[in-house]
Amino acid sequence: MNDTEILQAIQARLDDLTKPKGSLGKLEDYAEKLSVLQGLVPPRVRRKAVFVMAGDHGVVNQGVSLYPREVTAQMVHNFMGGGAGINVLARACGFDVYAVDTGVDGDFPAWPVKGKARPDGSMAPGFFPMKAVRGTRDFAVEPAMSPAEFRTCLDNGARLADFAASEGYDIVAIGDMGIGNTTSAAAILVALGFDPDQMIDRGTGIDDAMLALKHKVVVDAVKARGPFGSGKPADTGAGKAAGLSGSEEALRIGAAFAGPEQATAAGLILGLRGKGIACMLDGFPITAAGALAWRIDPSVLRFLFAGHQSRVKGHRPVLDAMGLEPAVCLDMRLGEGTGAVIGGFMVELGAKIASEMATFSGMAISRAKADEKDF
Amino acid sequence: MNDTEILQAIQARLDDLTKPKGSLGKLEDYAEKLSVLQGLVPPRVRRKAVFVMAGDHGVVNQGVSLYPREVTAQMVHNFMGGGAGINVLARACGFDVYAVDTGVDGDFPAWPVKGKARPDGSMAPGFFPMKAVRGTRDFAVEPAMSPAEFRTCLDNGARLADFAASEGYDIVAIGDMGIGNTTSAAAILVALGFDPDQMIDRGTGIDDAMLALKHKVVVDAVKARGPFGSGKPADTGAGKAAGLSGSEEALRIGAAFAGPEQATAAGLILGLRGKGIACMLDGFPITAAGALAWRIDPSVLRFLFAGHQSRVKGHRPVLDAMGLEPAVCLDMRLGEGTGAVIGGFMVELGAKIASEMATFSGMAISRAKADEKDF
Repeated sequence: MNDTEILQAIQARLDDLTKPKGSLGKLEDYAEKLSVLQGLVPPRVRRKAVFVMAGDHGVVNQGVSLYPREVTAQMVHNFMGGGAGINVLARACGFDVYAVDTGVDGDFPAWPVKGKARPDGSMAPGFFPMKAVRGTRDFAVEPAMSPAEFRTCLDNGARLADFAASEGYDIVAIGDMGIGNTTSAAAILVALGFDPDQMIDRGTGIDDAMLALKHKVVVDAVKARGPFGSGKPADTGAGKAAGLSGSEEALRIGAAFAGPEQATAAGLILGLRGKGIACMLDGFPITAAGALAWRIDPSVLRFLFAGHQSRVKGHRPVLDAMGLEPAVCLDMRLGEGTGAVIGGFMVELGAKIASEMATFSGMAISRAKADEKDF
Repeated sequence: MNDTEILQAIQARLDDLTKPKGSLGKLEDYAEKLSVLQGLVPPRVRRKAVFVMAGDHGVVNQGVSLYPREVTAQMVHNFMGGGAGINVLARACGFDVYAVDTGVDGDFPAWPVKGKARPDGSMAPGFFPMKAVRGTRDFAVEPAMSPAEFRTCLDNGARLADFAASEGYDIVAIGDMGIGNTTSAAAILVALGFDPDQMIDRGTGIDDAMLALKHKVVVDAVKARGPFGSGKPADTGAGKAAGLSGSEEALRIGAAFAGPEQATAAGLILGLRGKGIACMLDGFPITAAGALAWRIDPSVLRFLFAGHQSRVKGHRPVLDAMGLEPAVCLDMRLGEGTGAVIGGFMVELGAKIASEMATFSGMAISRAKADEKDF
């Protein structure tokens, strides 16, 4: 069946469920999008995983974050110990957790890739050592990564996508841990054409003076590394004038500003193309990675979902530009994939509705008088 | 400990978790409210139940609903068979399901009160036969119930609250099934003082002519059964002029317009007072029952939570008046408790965060430089 036929088939199934048509709202939208991307009616969700991408950022040298850089490595230990927010929420929402060292400035033990099963059936966290850099260079001074380092991150992400497919994960959530990464996210997005005043926010809670500094660092760096285009997936603006395609320009933007966790996330998203796996974006830093992947290949929207709307003010405008409606809005701003796993649970509810509810055609339930109408 | 001490203790615990202060947003709010209502730090969620209140409405004689009255009884069979939307979502969110015949115009088998455990550990639906009426009288013509019938419903609800406490349920969600009950909900709320233009909506999808009829039926009936007061929990307006307390007036409004499912829901809410159990409201019909209970005793807000914001336009203004922020907004309008169990899952996430995350005081993680600030 082609996409149109799949869509008709899942809509027919949703309309045959024992409820007024459309009354499960967004859950029905999720079931439809899942069906189309999987090519299955009803859609299925066998296993779910969250990849927590950890990486360090040279730009913290500019004093743009409240937390010291070593927190990134400390939090990787917390993920592997099972005590972080993402561990608790992933377990509750049925996601396996994988921490990924994409480029942390610190060393870790040789943790296993796949964690052991726990007595309650959940899995202990797994670990991917994929250190492409030991933290990026300070993008206020020079490009954050070389083109080769950036490419390595994209390739590492593609390997994670292959792993997810081989393990039978139908939903992949992406989270982030990287002190300084709301600053790199803002730089990526400003370079992609978004408004700096919308994109630069307080992160974990900086004051007015630090906010002004962060604004200056981002705007000056985008100017110094540019010129870049207009932020649309099509090739426009200064980037086009410089003879760059949208994809080439996005690669240049990624190397200039991205942290390794964002570059690896973009690689994971691009690697999921054609695999029939849904991908949940988390907050602002991962959504910036999503926007980068989207600029490289707009077709990724086929399987991308917005997990949540975070409290970071730049998050919503970027989701809006990508046409992604967040599943929940819980005023969170933790990162780690915490919003992505809650949103992924909502998407799974859509799949369950479509596959587990009774149908009118199988039950003796009176339909509405106006049943033929699409009310 | 008193409430203030409990609140300080849970706030101290939330601030010691390995995350920036306040970064889990509403989940932290839920943990705080749960702690205070339970008197426990951290809060706990042992078991969760949804009571789906089913009842029939005489006002359907006026032609205000698209669905025939017999659907109420048919859907009770669907709940007990496990194929309705609430069954699927309750299982996914970890809620036991109880269908309650509060006053359906139909007869049911002698289903057991407590369903058997299934192989996957979930429970088959249980059933409470609590038929106070065989459908209400048409409130366009006469009061829906006698004061004695209404009292019976309240008493039945109180018995459900006792059952919930004895079973160790820490979260109770309330759902509804009653053809015509957005009309009775609108009448309850207009009598409580809400704006008719906001409260009267299309329900399961009626057209302009039926909407105009529904508006006339509600406004005329409130006028005929009144006068009533202003909608505030304090004693004001015409009700006060007539010498009625808010509580007496609410009882009169309930008997005049409520369906048995709404009256039993109000009784359940009132019965939960002092039991340390959180109560999740569902959509418009159950929120009307919640508003009735609130008018009878404003202290119920201590343990009430808004499960979701439905697509029915009157829902949000009532939640706003009660000061309840919905947990999710998924554009649903199914009822049955579907929004209440999803919201209840979110509240449980708050409890899990508070009890399962690692703490700074127990870990070697660097705090923010501005840690003392409440950023």
